[in-house]
Amino acid sequence: MPASLGVRISPVEGIKRIEPGDDLGAVIAQAVRRKRFELADDDIVVVTQKIVSKSEGRLARLDEVRPTREAAALAAELGKDPRMVELVLRESKRVVRKGHGVLITETRHGFVCANSGIDVSNVETGYAALLPLDPDASARRIRTSLEKATAKRLAVIVTDTFGRPWREGQTDLAIGCSGIAPTQKLAGRKDPYGYVLRVTQPAIVDEVAAAAELVMKKLSLVPVAIVRGVKYRRGESGARSMVRKRSLDLFR
Amino acid sequence: MPASLGVRISPVEGIKRIEPGDDLGAVIAQAVRRKRFELADDDIVVVTQKIVSKSEGRLARLDEVRPTREAAALAAELGKDPRMVELVLRESKRVVRKGHGVLITETRHGFVCANSGIDVSNVETGYAALLPLDPDASARRIRTSLEKATAKRLAVIVTDTFGRPWREGQTDLAIGCSGIAPTQKLAGRKDPYGYVLRVTQPAIVDEVAAAAELVMKKLSLVPVAIVRGVKYRRGESGARSMVRKRSLDLFR
Repeated sequence: MPASLGVRISPVEGIKRIEPGDDLGAVIAQAVRRKRFELADDDIVVVTQKIVSKSEGRLARLDEVRPTREAAALAAELGKDPRMVELVLRESKRVVRKGHGVLITETRHGFVCANSGIDVSNVETGYAALLPLDPDASARRIRTSLEKATAKRLAVIVTDTFGRPWREGQTDLAIGCSGIAPTQKLAGRKDPYGYVLRVTQPAIVDEVAAAAELVMKKLSLVPVAIVRGVKYRRGESGARSMVRKRSLDLFR
Repeated sequence: MPASLGVRISPVEGIKRIEPGDDLGAVIAQAVRRKRFELADDDIVVVTQKIVSKSEGRLARLDEVRPTREAAALAAELGKDPRMVELVLRESKRVVRKGHGVLITETRHGFVCANSGIDVSNVETGYAALLPLDPDASARRIRTSLEKATAKRLAVIVTDTFGRPWREGQTDLAIGCSGIAPTQKLAGRKDPYGYVLRVTQPAIVDEVAAAAELVMKKLSLVPVAIVRGVKYRRGESGARSMVRKRSLDLFR
């Protein structure tokens, strides 16, 4: 079966431990070359948030965090580390839900997730990783650097793991993207029976993020995947454009 | 790069228009053979809900639906077809949100989605497709029939398209599955830095559903995809086991 008919997702192993200041695009290009794999035009490079945050120095040393009284009270209520709660509140616009030891917030970007996306897995002990300040800009920087290194036209998606209301388990979603429009627009087009689709607008960057997670392996340091064969529109509106407008949001 | 290192998603074209009573497993096996593609052990066959509903006769003729007064009032409030609203209410346990012309309900299975998952795209004019009564049983039936036709050990996921709170665009999720455990359990295992993961539990069937949507093409009748190369645990707890328990749900 020719490759053009399907989608292929390849893990990129051998990414070194990322330090603040690292040029992620260059690091990824190098790992891909070492794998004797060549990027092609329109490949989508999916990068997990954790290494993006590290490269941007978005790490907080927990023993330097002084919790406010509010954070300390909330931490006691939820049975959480007060320093973590302090960071979560600093990175958030509002608390969306709390209970069962869980703190769900709206981040400054407008994403609704547990703990403002902050976590302590896959980082040095004693540190917490914060989300990038502007994940769309992060994706753009990585894309520019990767395109320079490979002379290919690429798209980049930065992903993070999100829980969902009403449903157990987590999936990866796009928190930043560049070179790809976050949703396809099918609304207004006809299905094969002649029916005009009204609301259909696949969130293609989230689907690619979820697909990439299938090869990422949280336990074995595979923070990058290459997705080939997806048909997509190019665009620079970014993952931030997927945050639903307050006036249209039935869940605010 | 050897296939074993990545995930491959292949669309299955040439599925005939499905009628009530069709044996979907046999139809899919035939289409795959016609493509000169061979299913392998552990392949995941992803099937969109629409053809499952059709094969099970889960279609309602709109002009035979008599809306109750409640449905008529709600339809007027939202600017919707009263017959559609009547079906939505019949298929639901409760209305979760309404507004902006949108009706979000909890289905009898426990899924929270727009219009109880009922829609009129990709069906004959004048009909609406309802979700399967028991999508896990649907997946099991398709798997049994496909395994018989191919003599391979397979998994089957039945998918539907869901919107999300707070976020524009839709992604496909699993509403039924068989031969695959819906979530992987990483909680309790250590990351490469020695940190014990506490809540991580990737919803692998939802990630596969989203990945498959990338080749499905809502406008061109590709209702089946084959996903190869995913590492997964087998299990029969079904997509229904992903519905969060009421007592743990912060969004009820």
